[in-house]
Parts: sequence; C-alpha cells; structure tokens
Amino acid sequence: MAPVKLIYFDVTALGEPIRYILHYSDTEFEDERLTSEQFGPRKPTFPLGKLPVLELDGKTVHQSVAISRYLAKKAGLAGKDDWESLLCDIAVDSILDLKSAFSGFHYDNNEESKKTKKELALSTTIPYYLGKFEEILKENGGHFVNGQLTWADFWFAGLADYLNYMAGKDILADSPGLKALKTKVEELPAIKKYLANRPAVRF
Amino acid sequence: MAPVKLIYFDVTALGEPIRYILHYSDTEFEDERLTSEQFGPRKPTFPLGKLPVLELDGKTVHQSVAISRYLAKKAGLAGKDDWESLLCDIAVDSILDLKSAFSGFHYDNNEESKKTKKELALSTTIPYYLGKFEEILKENGGHFVNGQLTWADFWFAGLADYLNYMAGKDILADSPGLKALKTKVEELPAIKKYLANRPAVRF
Repeated sequence: MAPVKLIYFDVTALGEPIRYILHYSDTEFEDERLTSEQFGPRKPTFPLGKLPVLELDGKTVHQSVAISRYLAKKAGLAGKDDWESLLCDIAVDSILDLKSAFSGFHYDNNEESKKTKKELALSTTIPYYLGKFEEILKENGGHFVNGQLTWADFWFAGLADYLNYMAGKDILADSPGLKALKTKVEELPAIKKYLANRPAVRF
Repeated sequence: MAPVKLIYFDVTALGEPIRYILHYSDTEFEDERLTSEQFGPRKPTFPLGKLPVLELDGKTVHQSVAISRYLAKKAGLAGKDDWESLLCDIAVDSILDLKSAFSGFHYDNNEESKKTKKELALSTTIPYYLGKFEEILKENGGHFVNGQLTWADFWFAGLADYLNYMAGKDILADSPGLKALKTKVEELPAIKKYLANRPAVRF
C-alpha cells in the first residue's frame, strides 16, 4: 500500500477523530499539519480547496466524515451489518448537529449576536442533545451503538475538547455517561499513546 | 416487512432526495407530510425532535443523509464496493456544503447581512462548487461517481429546485452537465411518475 497521509491544520477539530481512527487501527501514516501560511498556496491543489484531505492508495480523498466512515469500515468500527452502520451514521450526524450548535456562536464575528446565540445554545440546544446522548449511551452499554466501540464513539471523544473550548467550560460536567465514554476512548492503548505524544493541542 | 413511512414537512428540501430513492427502488411507503401545526405537538415524539424521520422494519430512524445512505445500499445506489461508497459519501457531503452556502444567507433574519452573504455566495462559493461539480461530472460520464447512477445523483437532483428557490434564479444556467444530470434523474420512469403526481411543490 502506498503511504497514507492525513493533511490538516495543526488543530484537533475535524482532524482528531480521523487521527484517533488511524491510530486505533494501527495504520502507519504521516500526520501533516499545515499552518495558515502553508495552506494558502496549497489550497487550490486540494479538492474543493478544503482540509482535511487524506492521501490513500495513491489517491486523494476529502470530507472528514466520509474519510472516517471509510477508515472505520476497514477497522471494524462501522457496525456488523447495514443496520448497525446506519445507527453509526445517525449518531455521527447527530454529534455534528451538536457541534453546529457550538460553531454557530463561536464563529460569529458580531459580539452581540454571538453572546445571544451562545446563551441560547448553552441553555437549550446543547443540554437537549447531551441529555439525548446520555439516554442513548444508557441504552447501549455506554456506547453510541449496541454496546460496541464504533467510529461514532471516536467522533464524540475526538471532538469533546474542541466543544469544551468553544463553550469555555466543561460541557460534560453533568453527563457522566459521555464523560466515561470519552475517558474509555482516551484510555485505549493506541489512543493513550497518541495523546501522550501528540503536538501541543490547538483548536 | 412492516409498512415504511417517511414523516417530513410538506416541502421538498431534505425530504425530496429520500422520496426519490424510495420511489426509484419501488418501495411502497406512506409519504406523511406535516404542517407546522401538526409538527408542534408531535415534535417531542421524534428522535432529537426533528424531521425527516423514517419508520422502517418497525423501528424509527432519523438524519436525512444517514437514512438515504441506508436506503441507497438496499437499492444498489451506493457503489459496488467500499471505495465507490466513499466516493458517493464525498459527493453527498460536498453537495451539502453547497447547500449550506445557500441556507447561510436564506435563513439569515437580518436583511443587511443576508444581502451581503447572498452576494458573496452567488459570486464566489456557489460558482466555485458548481464548477468543481461540472468537472467531476465530465470525468464520470455525467454522474457523480464512476459513470453510474448513485444516491449522490439523487441528492443533487432532489435538492436543485430548492437551491434555485433560495437563489431566486436558475443556478444551473451555466452548468450543462449538472442540468443534464437533473433531467436524467427526473426522467427515470419512477421519478417521472412521482413528479407528475406529487403534491404542489413547497420549499
């Protein structure tokens, strides 16, 4: 197999779940992290001009969630049949909906509407999603899908610190199931090793 | 198999690609369309309180893209292997990025920023995506993936009128490949029959 290379910025965000899956599946890969200055001139060379991009089997693919799903299938992290794959997809898309509730205020440049949106998100949308996710985890043995480790768990665990950063607080303080899942993923030997050695975390 | 029911609003938007796939695969289903008044009291009964929702095999699932991918697999519309499935996923997520460029201005309640965003989207982001998609179609025999009909084609064709509506003009005027693909999908016998009989189009 040709070398695998993940190209992204030197931040966690949409790259970290992919890095988790690559490390968990013991895939040797180059973890290329671009500064904004490095990205500029290379932007036109990327499909749709965006990152992350994965070079794999001599081809270049993009879209963080699509990449993750493909790698998850190869790593046995996408459910045992089409139905469980559907449940993984539903969980990941719902986690991304939760993320949108954060990015909706975090990336608003107008201080006034940012404040209003943040208060609304932190008092309604975000607790609603976290509550629903806690229920799902209770019904699924601490995981998002049928008591097993899937790429949905990696997406949640890989994004959580980024969500906390946007919120400016520990959003999982009252979500023991989600907190335990995050810890469980972080203590998987391959992830633990990666976390101990990764570059300083930036968001 | 228990009856299949799609529950959505009486609009095309995120429901139409699913309806296309269900009709194309000759799946007998109830196409339940709720008014806002009907949705209100039922909202808490839906997973995450949102639509569309699909009742299938006696279970309730949600997330429009996840639902579509599952139905597409069953209908042979998701590629012949994991690699082609990845290409479908990349295409669909890119089509959704394009859609975001429209909804970003369309659902902005501030008239001033709406206008600024719309001008920017229609002059830069949207032509950029459409241009890239035209290239993809040229390289793939008029389809998004490897010269074959996939659920990515249904997502594009099913969303196009909604995108035109948000733009207030025919966004495909200078995109002959995309226009031909939309027509090709609309002339598939099952889709043609559906289009001739569907309720008046609302967005």
